[in-house]
Amino acid sequence: MVSTRNTIYEESVRLHRIYKGKIEVVPKIPLKSMRDFSIWYTPGVAGPAKKIAESVDEVFELTSRWNMVAVISDGTRVLGLGDIGPEAAYPVMEGKALLFKYLGGVDAVPIVIATRNADELIRTIKLIEPSFGGVNLEDIESPKCFYILNKLREIMDIPVWHDDQQGTALVVLAALINAFKIVGKDLRKARIVLVGLGAANYSVLRYLEAYGVDLGNIIVVEKPGIGILHRSHPMLESFKNTHPHWYEASLKTNRDEVTGGIREALKGADAVIAASRPGPGIIKSEWIKEMNNDPIVFALANPVPEILPEEALRAGARIVATGRSDYPNQVNNSLGFPAVFRGALQVRARKITDEMCIAGAEALAKYTEETGLSENRILPSMMEEEAYIREAVAVARKALEQGVARRKESIKVVEEEIREIIRRARRLGKPVH
Amino acid sequence: MVSTRNTIYEESVRLHRIYKGKIEVVPKIPLKSMRDFSIWYTPGVAGPAKKIAESVDEVFELTSRWNMVAVISDGTRVLGLGDIGPEAAYPVMEGKALLFKYLGGVDAVPIVIATRNADELIRTIKLIEPSFGGVNLEDIESPKCFYILNKLREIMDIPVWHDDQQGTALVVLAALINAFKIVGKDLRKARIVLVGLGAANYSVLRYLEAYGVDLGNIIVVEKPGIGILHRSHPMLESFKNTHPHWYEASLKTNRDEVTGGIREALKGADAVIAASRPGPGIIKSEWIKEMNNDPIVFALANPVPEILPEEALRAGARIVATGRSDYPNQVNNSLGFPAVFRGALQVRARKITDEMCIAGAEALAKYTEETGLSENRILPSMMEEEAYIREAVAVARKALEQGVARRKESIKVVEEEIREIIRRARRLGKPVH
Repeated sequence: MVSTRNTIYEESVRLHRIYKGKIEVVPKIPLKSMRDFSIWYTPGVAGPAKKIAESVDEVFELTSRWNMVAVISDGTRVLGLGDIGPEAAYPVMEGKALLFKYLGGVDAVPIVIATRNADELIRTIKLIEPSFGGVNLEDIESPKCFYILNKLREIMDIPVWHDDQQGTALVVLAALINAFKIVGKDLRKARIVLVGLGAANYSVLRYLEAYGVDLGNIIVVEKPGIGILHRSHPMLESFKNTHPHWYEASLKTNRDEVTGGIREALKGADAVIAASRPGPGIIKSEWIKEMNNDPIVFALANPVPEILPEEALRAGARIVATGRSDYPNQVNNSLGFPAVFRGALQVRARKITDEMCIAGAEALAKYTEETGLSENRILPSMMEEEAYIREAVAVARKALEQGVARRKESIKVVEEEIREIIRRARRLGKPVH
Repeated sequence: MVSTRNTIYEESVRLHRIYKGKIEVVPKIPLKSMRDFSIWYTPGVAGPAKKIAESVDEVFELTSRWNMVAVISDGTRVLGLGDIGPEAAYPVMEGKALLFKYLGGVDAVPIVIATRNADELIRTIKLIEPSFGGVNLEDIESPKCFYILNKLREIMDIPVWHDDQQGTALVVLAALINAFKIVGKDLRKARIVLVGLGAANYSVLRYLEAYGVDLGNIIVVEKPGIGILHRSHPMLESFKNTHPHWYEASLKTNRDEVTGGIREALKGADAVIAASRPGPGIIKSEWIKEMNNDPIVFALANPVPEILPEEALRAGARIVATGRSDYPNQVNNSLGFPAVFRGALQVRARKITDEMCIAGAEALAKYTEETGLSENRILPSMMEEEAYIREAVAVARKALEQGVARRKESIKVVEEEIREIIRRARRLGKPVH
């Protein structure tokens, strides 16, 4: 396996060097002669410029801004590589831009920013806001990323999304909805354990709350030395400043004030969602055996899950999901962000609300159910175009319902547009050389 | 004519609304299956990311950064419309991005920035520097734009260009070289009058100096109330703070300390380059008659030149150029920036030096001469692909000579690449619907 990985890395470097990147910017309008430039550039372009000067929202109808997303990173937590700087984050952001287009028909460009200061990052993004229809934050270290996302959602008038938070959580929620369908339990009353409260699981917690899950039944376990969070945790006061999201979780979860580590948390639990960094083997087979009947195990650490699927299944797990493409049930962010942005941009949403995300997760879960649910298929694959269309339409519908959309068209019109754009995008990227 | 203009504006608004912008971001690599994403995104992309973390300049070889240009405006001086804000500047920047690709094979995106503070604009651009291979500033008000460009050229490690300064000046210089060839005079010893010392003419002055023109023979006339600049100008001291570029020009030009207005400046002059804002009719026919033999008249104000070509010709002008496409000899920025950036980006230049621009202007002039010089053809048209190739190669060659290029390939290799990229770009934008 190590040698396969090495080969993939080397092959990737080789191909990146040949093509010198992955995306390009091209005309989307027909250009038949130089005279067309008098329409698209001077003097004609003064027409659209004046219209926008009179009514600023016209910029979403007369320019590409409506569909243009900045994929932004400061390079402080890139993949599993850590703090490697904005330049080294570029190929990753560019890869994300590629997925945005291919899976969601979204025009996206990498914007890597050379600052480690959260407030400076926020200010910079605010200043370039008029250039974009949306912002996708990526690979920014925690806990800084919580402050940045919350602040930006507050001050920006376009959707702001941190894919390591909301993106992962959306796909986890969809998978969880379907896993609970299979085991025939009520997700809203379930005992669920979250291992690690980083970018992903903090958003999972927020979505579970918004979905109507009783948080009193949820148990959060943080790293050794912190252990299970609860309202009487001896370090509670210090959390307030160092990790406000731990503080919040300590008060909201774990009604019974269970204490200890992962083992204690798992006793009698219906599901565990592990999204930790410490590495492999942190969940033991014996502990799975101490969970409730039909245990659901999401072991999302990459590349090595907290417990290997074969081990978890041997220990009695009914449903196992990981972050990896070589096992069934991949919790893959790429099932989320392209459709969520497609839906939000299509109605010119001012923001992406948690309710829009939950609508997206429900649509994703429902599509999977309708097309064949099983222990090994709680999520669709990236191949399934229709999954993206259904998810995007659900997000757009919720935005229209909630009044956060600039457009007022009916969902029927919007759905037609979404279907056409996603279909067209999948035809791109066919061999060009 | 007014009704034609109105029609162009309305038609432009109509088409912008149908297409919802002009550019899109697409894959430039072949995607045959979802498995390709493991090369272009995770896990493979960790390979290029690590390479760049080890050696930061690898970002120019392994990502699209090398060819990506930000077309940046704060919206403070958009076309002839003035200070209409960053959103209203967007369609203009997007049009520029279209020209960048079609004429130069450069990937460009509009970045409009919501600040009126020069230092904040500079800081923002510096922070997003790792996202781009070059920066094209556009439609930023004068005199702020001089400070911004100079500062950015100093602190940035990629080419920074203000098209309203360097771009116009490059094309003016090329046109001037050819005009002087036709009249058989020596440009370096000529008596030249600059009417208006804004963004364009300030750069013209700098280029003339770098080209070896004796600035003592140049006369600069500013607006009424200021008049001809010279070292004994009564307001000289106040220029230091309010208009440092006037101060500089007062000391460097006009050896004979000619005083007065445009009329006095033009007496006995070989050429006049008018790039003013005050509007039409500011140069009178009688004053042209008082110029030296074979007068050269560049009347560049848009849409109405400082003197109409037919009038200037009747008054004895030998060669007339304007900014308009409906007269011969259009001084068109689009003959400059696409090729200059193509050349600079191709060798991964750290900056665009004045010498690179002059080399570009000379190549543009020479190409025109070789393909048929006349009073009505001192510049090529946008149709002439070969002009762009020759200009880009000249810019790249000079960058290699001056040691400002990151790449060390021979100019032969670079020329082949430039030719291929520019040819391919012209095939884009054929009808897509």
